[in-house]
Amino acid sequence: MSRPEPKPRSHYARFIPISTRWMDNDVYGHVNNVTYYSYFDTAVNLYLIQAGALDIARSTAIGLVVDTGCQYFASVAFPDAIEAGIRVAHTGRSSVRYEVGIFAEGDAQTRAAGHFVHVYVDRETRRPVELPAALRTAVQAIALPAE
Amino acid sequence: MSRPEPKPRSHYARFIPISTRWMDNDVYGHVNNVTYYSYFDTAVNLYLIQAGALDIARSTAIGLVVDTGCQYFASVAFPDAIEAGIRVAHTGRSSVRYEVGIFAEGDAQTRAAGHFVHVYVDRETRRPVELPAALRTAVQAIALPAE
Amino acid sequence: MSRPEPKPRSHYARFIPISTRWMDNDVYGHVNNVTYYSYFDTAVNLYLIQAGALDIARSTAIGLVVDTGCQYFASVAFPDAIEAGIRVAHTGRSSVRYEVGIFAEGDAQTRAAGHFVHVYVDRETRRPVELPAALRTAVQAIALPAE
Amino acid sequence: MSRPEPKPRSHYARFIPISTRWMDNDVYGHVNNVTYYSYFDTAVNLYLIQAGALDIARSTAIGLVVDTGCQYFASVAFPDAIEAGIRVAHTGRSSVRYEVGIFAEGDAQTRAAGHFVHVYVDRETRRPVELPAALRTAVQAIALPAE
Repeated sequence: MSRPEPKPRSHYARFIPISTRWMDNDVYGHVNNVTYYSYFDTAVNLYLIQAGALDIARSTAIGLVVDTGCQYFASVAFPDAIEAGIRVAHTGRSSVRYEVGIFAEGDAQTRAAGHFVHVYVDRETRRPVELPAALRTAVQAIALPAE
Repeated sequence: MSRPEPKPRSHYARFIPISTRWMDNDVYGHVNNVTYYSYFDTAVNLYLIQAGALDIARSTAIGLVVDTGCQYFASVAFPDAIEAGIRVAHTGRSSVRYEVGIFAEGDAQTRAAGHFVHVYVDRETRRPVELPAALRTAVQAIALPAE
Repeated sequence: MSRPEPKPRSHYARFIPISTRWMDNDVYGHVNNVTYYSYFDTAVNLYLIQAGALDIARSTAIGLVVDTGCQYFASVAFPDAIEAGIRVAHTGRSSVRYEVGIFAEGDAQTRAAGHFVHVYVDRETRRPVELPAALRTAVQAIALPAE
Repeated sequence: MSRPEPKPRSHYARFIPISTRWMDNDVYGHVNNVTYYSYFDTAVNLYLIQAGALDIARSTAIGLVVDTGCQYFASVAFPDAIEAGIRVAHTGRSSVRYEVGIFAEGDAQTRAAGHFVHVYVDRETRRPVELPAALRTAVQAIALPAE
């Protein structure tokens, strides 16, 4: 297995600014590893909402997370201003693999780089459904071929 | 006891933008009451750091919270962009009462308004100390007389 | 205004054990002031669910928080085991004032003591409703007269 | 790539009870994917502290997280009581791979199963160090051979 490397900005299709919070820092003075996943959720769902592809209260298809992962290369800390780069790496019939990279402002490379896989299910039955058209459009707009 | 009222923008001395997060929403679809306090901590400490009055890793005087409170008038929800208005309502020998109001972008009045009281203590002994000069200056710059 | 005092165990009607978490500690090594409110929500809602007075997904009346507050007397820190003491201090037509005290295991007095006020509203219209009978019963079972 | 499978209880060496919290549930009514990582941190660090291998304030070697991941098989939700199963899957000169599985009480199989890799560094210089003896002992006590 090759050692994971930080990703450059060109790896991502859109950048979402996120403000860090006092509570993001843990007792060692840096953003806790858990909190990066909160940035991931925030960045991707914000993009989907702004693209008209997700309405938290009303969308009939909702994304359930089945797999997540993250590699950490360097730390960020409150009060850093950060940006989350997002891209779609794979789109299936019911699933999407989102990749997210965390940059401090001005960084050329990710401080942390991760992914999560959404399986889209019916809000009531929780059974997988085909990606709705608006979602597919939004996802394709940030899909980038693997390098 | 008079019913609490939302505060206008003029009640606050500075405004700090904060990005909401997916996890801020609870199961009822709005930002959970707990999370507002996380906005309070973030806004005031960000101000103090930017004013040169707090260095998280090195300041010899650190603020311990002894009292907090909040009234909620209307909800905010991810992905709202919000602003935290901050002011200092009282400064003692070792303590400061900060007031914070949460506005959605463009709001004339607070959605929630609260406060916290910091007692400044020596980082090692945890005994109260006089407010350091840089902190006193930063605090006075956002002190507003009670209406 | 009299200085607030820690509360004894006899101030509370029920005790709910809560496990602290790594992330509860902030950069100063103790549970962050915000996190206590998360214990409050957890303790009271757990009690209501176990008493059959709240079904998160189905109850037609849901509690919206309109007022919260907390005084902090001494700190707790992960990995402390803690207990939340709960009581009801006031019951109105649509509202309930819950009081919660945080004890480390074996403590005679609260490390922190706070409250929150729920106004019960219809889940759809978000208009205040009379307390449902099951909720009123559960609330009365932990109501204690003011000292 | 083979599809990940839930792990049985026998995959883990120790079990740590964790209480869920109101805020763990997200808007879809189940514990948010992010929060599982908070359970991971909590379970492993609690074990290390109780084993005398970690003193948050004083240990000269601290664990920095360089890699995390999780697969989600079924959801948990507040107010479920859960247990985190822990094991060590690999020990290097300076690093440890911890695996953690989340079970609802009584479950035979994980609802979610993940891992994190700690690299132990000097608290001041943040350079990798050899695992201290007490840590190595604690880690070996929960090391299980791969199946």
